[in-house]
Amino acid sequence: MAFKYLSNIPLADARSLFLEALISAGLRSETENIKTVDANHRIAAKAVYAQLSAPHYNSCAMDGIALNASLSYGATDTRPITLQEGQFRWVNTGDPLPAECDAVVMVEDVIEVDNGAIQLFAAAVPWQHIRQIGEDIAQGDMIIPSYTEITPAIQGAMLAAGVLDIEVIKKPVVAVIPTGNELVSPQADPQEGNIIEFNSTIIKGMLQDWGCEAVVYPIVRDEPDLITEAVRNASENCDFVLLNAGSSAGKKDYSVDAIGEIGEVVLHGVAIRPGKPVVLGFASKDRKVVPLVGLPGYPVSAILVMEELIRPAMNLLIKRDDQAKPLVEATVSRRLTSSLKYLEFIRARVGNVNGKLVAVPLNRGAGVVSSFVKADGIIEVPQNTEGYEAGEKVPVSLVRKMKDIDKTLVITGSHDPLIDELIDLMKMKWLDSQVVSSHVGSLGGLMALKRGESHLGGTHLLDEETGEYNKSYVRRYFPEGGVKLINCVYRSQGLMVANGNPLNIASISDLERVNYVNRQKGSGTRILLDYLLKQNNLESAQIKGYEREEITHTAVAAAVASGTADAGMGILAAAKIYDLGFIPLVHEQYDLLVAEKTLAHPEFKRLLAVMQSDEFSQRLEKLGGYQLNNPGEVNL
Amino acid sequence: MAFKYLSNIPLADARSLFLEALISAGLRSETENIKTVDANHRIAAKAVYAQLSAPHYNSCAMDGIALNASLSYGATDTRPITLQEGQFRWVNTGDPLPAECDAVVMVEDVIEVDNGAIQLFAAAVPWQHIRQIGEDIAQGDMIIPSYTEITPAIQGAMLAAGVLDIEVIKKPVVAVIPTGNELVSPQADPQEGNIIEFNSTIIKGMLQDWGCEAVVYPIVRDEPDLITEAVRNASENCDFVLLNAGSSAGKKDYSVDAIGEIGEVVLHGVAIRPGKPVVLGFASKDRKVVPLVGLPGYPVSAILVMEELIRPAMNLLIKRDDQAKPLVEATVSRRLTSSLKYLEFIRARVGNVNGKLVAVPLNRGAGVVSSFVKADGIIEVPQNTEGYEAGEKVPVSLVRKMKDIDKTLVITGSHDPLIDELIDLMKMKWLDSQVVSSHVGSLGGLMALKRGESHLGGTHLLDEETGEYNKSYVRRYFPEGGVKLINCVYRSQGLMVANGNPLNIASISDLERVNYVNRQKGSGTRILLDYLLKQNNLESAQIKGYEREEITHTAVAAAVASGTADAGMGILAAAKIYDLGFIPLVHEQYDLLVAEKTLAHPEFKRLLAVMQSDEFSQRLEKLGGYQLNNPGEVNL
Repeated sequence: MAFKYLSNIPLADARSLFLEALISAGLRSETENIKTVDANHRIAAKAVYAQLSAPHYNSCAMDGIALNASLSYGATDTRPITLQEGQFRWVNTGDPLPAECDAVVMVEDVIEVDNGAIQLFAAAVPWQHIRQIGEDIAQGDMIIPSYTEITPAIQGAMLAAGVLDIEVIKKPVVAVIPTGNELVSPQADPQEGNIIEFNSTIIKGMLQDWGCEAVVYPIVRDEPDLITEAVRNASENCDFVLLNAGSSAGKKDYSVDAIGEIGEVVLHGVAIRPGKPVVLGFASKDRKVVPLVGLPGYPVSAILVMEELIRPAMNLLIKRDDQAKPLVEATVSRRLTSSLKYLEFIRARVGNVNGKLVAVPLNRGAGVVSSFVKADGIIEVPQNTEGYEAGEKVPVSLVRKMKDIDKTLVITGSHDPLIDELIDLMKMKWLDSQVVSSHVGSLGGLMALKRGESHLGGTHLLDEETGEYNKSYVRRYFPEGGVKLINCVYRSQGLMVANGNPLNIASISDLERVNYVNRQKGSGTRILLDYLLKQNNLESAQIKGYEREEITHTAVAAAVASGTADAGMGILAAAKIYDLGFIPLVHEQYDLLVAEKTLAHPEFKRLLAVMQSDEFSQRLEKLGGYQLNNPGEVNL
Repeated sequence: MAFKYLSNIPLADARSLFLEALISAGLRSETENIKTVDANHRIAAKAVYAQLSAPHYNSCAMDGIALNASLSYGATDTRPITLQEGQFRWVNTGDPLPAECDAVVMVEDVIEVDNGAIQLFAAAVPWQHIRQIGEDIAQGDMIIPSYTEITPAIQGAMLAAGVLDIEVIKKPVVAVIPTGNELVSPQADPQEGNIIEFNSTIIKGMLQDWGCEAVVYPIVRDEPDLITEAVRNASENCDFVLLNAGSSAGKKDYSVDAIGEIGEVVLHGVAIRPGKPVVLGFASKDRKVVPLVGLPGYPVSAILVMEELIRPAMNLLIKRDDQAKPLVEATVSRRLTSSLKYLEFIRARVGNVNGKLVAVPLNRGAGVVSSFVKADGIIEVPQNTEGYEAGEKVPVSLVRKMKDIDKTLVITGSHDPLIDELIDLMKMKWLDSQVVSSHVGSLGGLMALKRGESHLGGTHLLDEETGEYNKSYVRRYFPEGGVKLINCVYRSQGLMVANGNPLNIASISDLERVNYVNRQKGSGTRILLDYLLKQNNLESAQIKGYEREEITHTAVAAAVASGTADAGMGILAAAKIYDLGFIPLVHEQYDLLVAEKTLAHPEFKRLLAVMQSDEFSQRLEKLGGYQLNNPGEVNL
């Protein structure tokens, strides 16, 4: 095992060590000349000066006549001055100002009389209606300083000023080398144990967005010689090498050795989570310095290391300064514990709920790439702190625009695919629609609403005593009111079992003899199970797999479909997706629990409209197992 | 003349009329299937659902052993449990969870004993260190709703979920047709009367940034048949047609007729300035609707019409909602008058000066494309208002990031190329450096500082009585202090004349017999001229061209170089750029006038450091006519 470079250096130190090592080794950008018309988004390698004035001649700014203003002095409404042909010239906008002329009178103010003569009823002011040479840009003026990102307007200004070619920073060519025996190219039907290699696509996209060229190498097997050879080859052909996977201190860590063999390892191991096992180094050959990096294998780790360590190094090459993301302060929705040893990055949903900015932490798993799909921002828990308490104000660096976050309707509660369908229908109808949803179970949604962290949530909480849904919970948790229950649907809940039901599961009592997969605490579906177990005089300890938790209906269905569980409770729609057997148990009421203040939210009004649309009822029919329950009607 | 469609419709009405006309004619997006790996920044045409769960099997999340957790129950530090070969399996991270196992113990917690047996010192919890199937995404889950812009992380999530191809919105192909007899392709040496055609480059860049393909057609001459033919051809081959120039109601307005002939004109003339003479229409053929637009010819007008009218229409095709720019409130630095007839868009510099956000209007000329290079935001003066008073709070839509604006050092004062050189040196040294400068003359800079609109400015104000520079002005305008004068340079001021000085201009008294070009009121150079005229017993009325104003040394030099003026006052550096003759008159002191609060501004400290650098003195040497004057030293 290659522990020799393993360290736990704080992020800021690691960053400066790496940057200083690269600078003192002599890392530098290359430049190239390109046509100005092709330069949008490129970075100017040096200051650009105007080669021509714009306009490059004194130009008439109106259609009309050009004249020497002094000829018009004294003209008034009652005593017009007449000019003969030869004393003035007809001109169009853009024409050069004729010699001896110093003013333009616009055509509307010129009266034509006989023999080509004209009359003026007001005196012209010298230099009126003339775009003087250099009005926009004078030759020799600096149009942009070094390292400016070129925009279409800058291209226009440069072309107007005769700058046809421009020296720009050459896009660094970055090698991305995926490594790992278990990796397979993206495919629809991978085997167990195959890991779909998608990190290179993410990394390539990030690099391109920063202004690099990315070259993705074929997957390299976990063999030291092959990996070293790939790094050597890439370091000779590219400006930057990113080796992905294999940088942990586990059994198959060949990155650090390969980098050490081709170049120099600056450090291995940074005190961040995720992202710890990164390797930072460089090769230096023929006075060219090529950074060599071992990125961690988990996608979330790789993305964070790219942002926190690779981008600052890349900025040395690309001369673009756009890393810092807007920082806001938000109230964290739940306690976040974190190790003293690491600076931790936690993806979070951020919502503006009635003027309060709330950050809801997402799944912290380093393999959960969907957390980056859902994230609005990143919470940083500094090294040497134990985390944050629920309700504490925390700094969040945003990855989504604040104006979008401000508009967003935040749905937090029970999982049902119909929520996603509603969001999709809204987006199709209103392009500017902004809705996010999180699955935390019915009770979790209720608590989030109570804490002011969401606008509404789906809920299906069965009162064991009355058999009624939701109402008694609302009365208990919101004794002072402030919320409304809105009807949505009835849906079919039951046991999802393997296709054909080979174990002949027919009722709750059969769960005693099979492997079960459960839902998380606080979910309506788990409360339903507990209620049904009690009705059947079963204890949870009698159910094998009771402690195995999933947080969505589809994740339970996936567990059953994979054969690692024999049964799980869920809705018919989830069973249908996986072509599972389904034993219906109850027809339950799924409502929306909405803060009263939310009723006026523009996106909520859209949500209601969509809930009542034909398109929604068609989507429900396709999902299966639903029955509309006067959607949008207030039931409490 | 084609006044027939001319109208003056308010912007919002024009926008809805156009969009409604397009929608009711049946404008719709096309879609295409592409590989997910190529989909970065594309827009999903429909909701994307997971085809696979990710992970697609129960996966070991640690290197170590897999076992059935129940085998470890009861193990403690003092009473370890021993498992024989066969009761557990060695696993690596990513391996499938072996059958009958429901937990993983990490290698650090496993003690190997004899014969392949191991010992555990703690009980395993079921499902620990296992990434359960669907932990990230479960098959059937909606990954993104319709019309989501795809990011690298979304690509990763889709590939992880087995989505290899995706239906995206096809990029609309947009024709850009420049028209005009006077237009020439960008070139280094245009003739008088030639107008460099750069609008198409700007428009193409904007379209590409929005997610369109742009096709720039060759320049079409101002002949009705040629223009109509070009529009017909483009409308048959493209999804959107933009005809540029010729949409004003002037002599050569063929756009509206061409559009009317090929399709239908919705409206001609919108109550905005600049941008008024736009033509909006569409063609409809074989159930395909192609918007046809005549854009105004001036670049500033064209850019504003693109943003305000074309982009909303394009959004119907590209399904991207990203038009709205962040709106801030800023104090406008000077009175802005505006016509009641128009909604007016005014480009502005925006600066944060000691916590006060200030908007400084830029040149309003529709031909001044450099105003878009300098602009931080756009002030809108609504229709039916006469404008804003100086000091009034006005809404500004930002085109630059607020975090950059907040950091920016605002220099407002006398023009000297050395300011641009300082900015360039700072940018080269610190990539995150943010400095902007405006040329308003010495007195203008002093007043801006007094009003709290800038951090500092260059100044060279001669006291006619004492012959001393700057100090008496500072004492007069800042009787309570609060500012510092910082030494910078001495520079050579004189008369710029044609190369070889053919008119034998030797002194101020010679100005009586030549064409002069002056600087604007309040500039130190004009004050110097007035002083020298008085010394020579000359009246301004005796100087031909005294009223012709330019606002920079280089613009004056450009006027002299073009032959439209014989002499102008300016610095040697400007004369050198244009290879002009130069008659030195004074060696004047150019200082920086700095608010005391600015002394602590991080960018100001950088500016001082650069002023004292060797690189700066080398740049001054290259410019010519400068002598360093203990730069950075406080002289008052």
